[in-house]
Amino acid sequence: MRIRPVLETDLDELFTLYAHYTASENRPPLSEARMAEIWREVERNPGVEYFALEQEGRIAATCILSITPSFIRGGSGYGVIEHVVTHADFRRRGFAKALMEFTLEHAWNQGCTEVMLLSGRDLAPAHKLYEGLGFDKHQRTGFIIFKP
Amino acid sequence: MRIRPVLETDLDELFTLYAHYTASENRPPLSEARMAEIWREVERNPGVEYFALEQEGRIAATCILSITPSFIRGGSGYGVIEHVVTHADFRRRGFAKALMEFTLEHAWNQGCTEVMLLSGRDLAPAHKLYEGLGFDKHQRTGFIIFKP
Repeated sequence: MRIRPVLETDLDELFTLYAHYTASENRPPLSEARMAEIWREVERNPGVEYFALEQEGRIAATCILSITPSFIRGGSGYGVIEHVVTHADFRRRGFAKALMEFTLEHAWNQGCTEVMLLSGRDLAPAHKLYEGLGFDKHQRTGFIIFKP
Repeated sequence: MRIRPVLETDLDELFTLYAHYTASENRPPLSEARMAEIWREVERNPGVEYFALEQEGRIAATCILSITPSFIRGGSGYGVIEHVVTHADFRRRGFAKALMEFTLEHAWNQGCTEVMLLSGRDLAPAHKLYEGLGFDKHQRTGFIIFKP
C-alpha cells in the first residue's frame, strides 16, 4: 500500500473509480480532449492535489485536496477535501482512513489551519470515518447548489 | 456599488474587515512580510478569486471563491465559497446577496457544476441568505477539523 499523487497515466483508472462514487449522475462521459484539458488545469493549480492509494498495482482509493491561501486564524490557508472514493473491491480494509490521514497530514504541513469537507447526509459509514479522524459535524452546516 | 477582484492595495482594509468575521480567534496578527507572501500565493493560484464589493469607496463585503478542476457531473470543476464577510456598517442592505449572486455567476461561467460552502451552525441570517440564493442545506453534512 502506498499513497502518491495521481498521474496523467492514471486518468482512465481514475474515471473508472469515479463510477464507484455515489451515483451514475457523477460521471457523464467527457471527451478525451476535454479530460486532458481539465488535467492541464489540475497541473497548473498549485493548490490542488489529487491523491491515489495504490494497492496490488491498482488505485484502491482517491481524494482531492484543495488549499486556498488565506489570512485568518494565523495560518496560511484552509483545505477542502472532495471526491473521496474507495473502489468497491477494496472497502472495509482501512484504505480510506489511511488516505484521509495522509491528506490531513499534508494539509497541516502546507500550513492549513483547518480542513473542511461535505458528505452526503445519509452516508453514515463515511461520517463515522470522518468523526473517527477528528472531524466535527456539529459546528458547520453544509450548503450546496448545482448549476441551474 | 461595484464588485471587483481584491487588489494587493486592499489588503489592509481586508484585514480590518476580517475582524468583523465571526470572532477574534479569526485574526491573530501576521507580519507584513507573511501577508505579502500569502498574497503571492493567491496571485499564483488560477483557481482562487478574492472578491470585494465596494460601496462609497470602502469594501463593504468580501468572499473567496476557490475552483477545483474535476471530472464528474460532466463539468469541469466545483467551487467552494469561504470567508463571506459583510462590514458591520453595511449590513441589511443586500450587499452580501449581491456579492454571492456575482460569485455564483462567475462560478457557473467558469464551468463549475456545483458550489458548496460551510456556515457556522447557528448563523441563521446567513443560512436564510444562502437558502434564498438556491443553496440546499439538507443534502450534505459539513465536517471541519482544525490543525492539532
